[in-house]
Amino acid sequence: MTQARAEPGNLIDGKAIARRLTDRVKIEVEALREKTGQLPGLAVVLVGNDPASEVYVRNKALQTHRAGMRSFMHMLPETTPQDELLGLIARLNGDPQIHGILVQLPLPKQIDPAVVTNAIVPHKDVDGLGEVNAGRLSLGIPGLVPCTPLGCLILLRETLPQMRGLHAVVIGASNLVGKPMAQLLLREGCTVSIAHIDTRDPAGLAREGDILVVATGRSGLVRGDWIRPGATVIDVGITRVPTHDGKTKLVGDVVFEEARQVAAHITPVPGGVGPMTIACLLHNTLQAARLTLDPQGGLA
Amino acid sequence: MTQARAEPGNLIDGKAIARRLTDRVKIEVEALREKTGQLPGLAVVLVGNDPASEVYVRNKALQTHRAGMRSFMHMLPETTPQDELLGLIARLNGDPQIHGILVQLPLPKQIDPAVVTNAIVPHKDVDGLGEVNAGRLSLGIPGLVPCTPLGCLILLRETLPQMRGLHAVVIGASNLVGKPMAQLLLREGCTVSIAHIDTRDPAGLAREGDILVVATGRSGLVRGDWIRPGATVIDVGITRVPTHDGKTKLVGDVVFEEARQVAAHITPVPGGVGPMTIACLLHNTLQAARLTLDPQGGLA
Repeated sequence: MTQARAEPGNLIDGKAIARRLTDRVKIEVEALREKTGQLPGLAVVLVGNDPASEVYVRNKALQTHRAGMRSFMHMLPETTPQDELLGLIARLNGDPQIHGILVQLPLPKQIDPAVVTNAIVPHKDVDGLGEVNAGRLSLGIPGLVPCTPLGCLILLRETLPQMRGLHAVVIGASNLVGKPMAQLLLREGCTVSIAHIDTRDPAGLAREGDILVVATGRSGLVRGDWIRPGATVIDVGITRVPTHDGKTKLVGDVVFEEARQVAAHITPVPGGVGPMTIACLLHNTLQAARLTLDPQGGLA
Repeated sequence: MTQARAEPGNLIDGKAIARRLTDRVKIEVEALREKTGQLPGLAVVLVGNDPASEVYVRNKALQTHRAGMRSFMHMLPETTPQDELLGLIARLNGDPQIHGILVQLPLPKQIDPAVVTNAIVPHKDVDGLGEVNAGRLSLGIPGLVPCTPLGCLILLRETLPQMRGLHAVVIGASNLVGKPMAQLLLREGCTVSIAHIDTRDPAGLAREGDILVVATGRSGLVRGDWIRPGATVIDVGITRVPTHDGKTKLVGDVVFEEARQVAAHITPVPGGVGPMTIACLLHNTLQAARLTLDPQGGLA
């Protein structure tokens, strides 16, 4: 095993790739408007006052608006009963101006997120977290794919000329990232391994990966010696940690300075996967609008 | 690596395990009848005259009947239009005597199997092949699980005291077996790897498996040196091949006489996975009936 010293060129520039995707969405939104006279519309629903969630939904709404789409925000109090939220979703399901519905997670205790997610009609489920879209992804039927793993896939496609036959190792088996990521990689023709909290030798398995996707939320879990020389590393984790000078910084699940010595390509944190998630939300909203407004146009 | 010579005791007796499962279903069917006054009912639909399919559906119908349930067979001509089949499924969806609907595959060319499978209401989809049940399996929500991988899981549970942390390797990534099998193994806490036609070194990956599930339909693919000493091997393949004396016999995807020298536990073909598939269909039909007739009773 030769440990080729990585060049700075090995960074996967998520910001730039997300900007290109967003620009393409904008152009296609305008084309859809010219063709059908209609604009895609996204409804974002926030329940409660979690400050991080407030930042996320404001950002999503703003980006949607900037991409030329209609953007609707529904902000409900922490005490909202589940039935009231389901009533709102039913109205949004039936609203012809709305093509995508996103309910920001986490939800307050009195609300079952699975019930809420599955109440969104599948063709407006732009987060791709409902059971119908999860099933379509598993079965290889076109559907709406969760934004973060879709963003990771686009980063990989932009980085690797082809993925068929590569061994992809996914660390983390969540419904939000790890599991749909594994399905997407399988669809690309990768051999796929999934590791998680119960995996006995995650480092050994990770070293088998031509592609390594890490989504555990445990900052600094993946050290340089977990990386196969020449691998492509996608770091989904994002955690705010204190620095020596009393400030804070964002770090990933991968020890970046070690990993970049070994990997051929690696996403930085921040500026890697993060920007892709919101760009993919815009992409999914456009796809969802096309399903209704221009079904013959097909999915891009 | 020590190559412990296997004892004959290492056979996984699918016939006996399937019989025990079927017996348990019978008892529970009777208990459900006593509690609710109703019997589970399974409708099996065959389109066309494929001789193998005719044998399968007759056998399914007969076993259902023997388990004390109502059994309905619908045999339609090869030329049946898709709309006519969808009309039948709509009637079965609405029929209170029917709790499970199974459409035998393959279907004639004029019929899209995905459309037909997804036309079955999810709570009657006893084959577990529709997108809602596939999504539930992926997301870890209770649902109806495809019969063959469910049968493999039960064989593994009967054989291994616990699976958490074991590395399970699945060879074959079909919607019918490989993909749902991977989901089930993940749910058991296994580290899971999925190999398929594009996998570069399937033998090397297979040798990593504490559990090896093979479902490729390629008889004799997996040789003895693909097996990790002490592994548990589940062979889903079943192919009829000619013998030297001019007759035929059924063989699996694994070269049995080689593999049993290395594996700690292995399913024979026939008599391994095969009998479990139909037992799991009965099990699923009972579960589906309970969902409607005795929802408080919960799933076994």
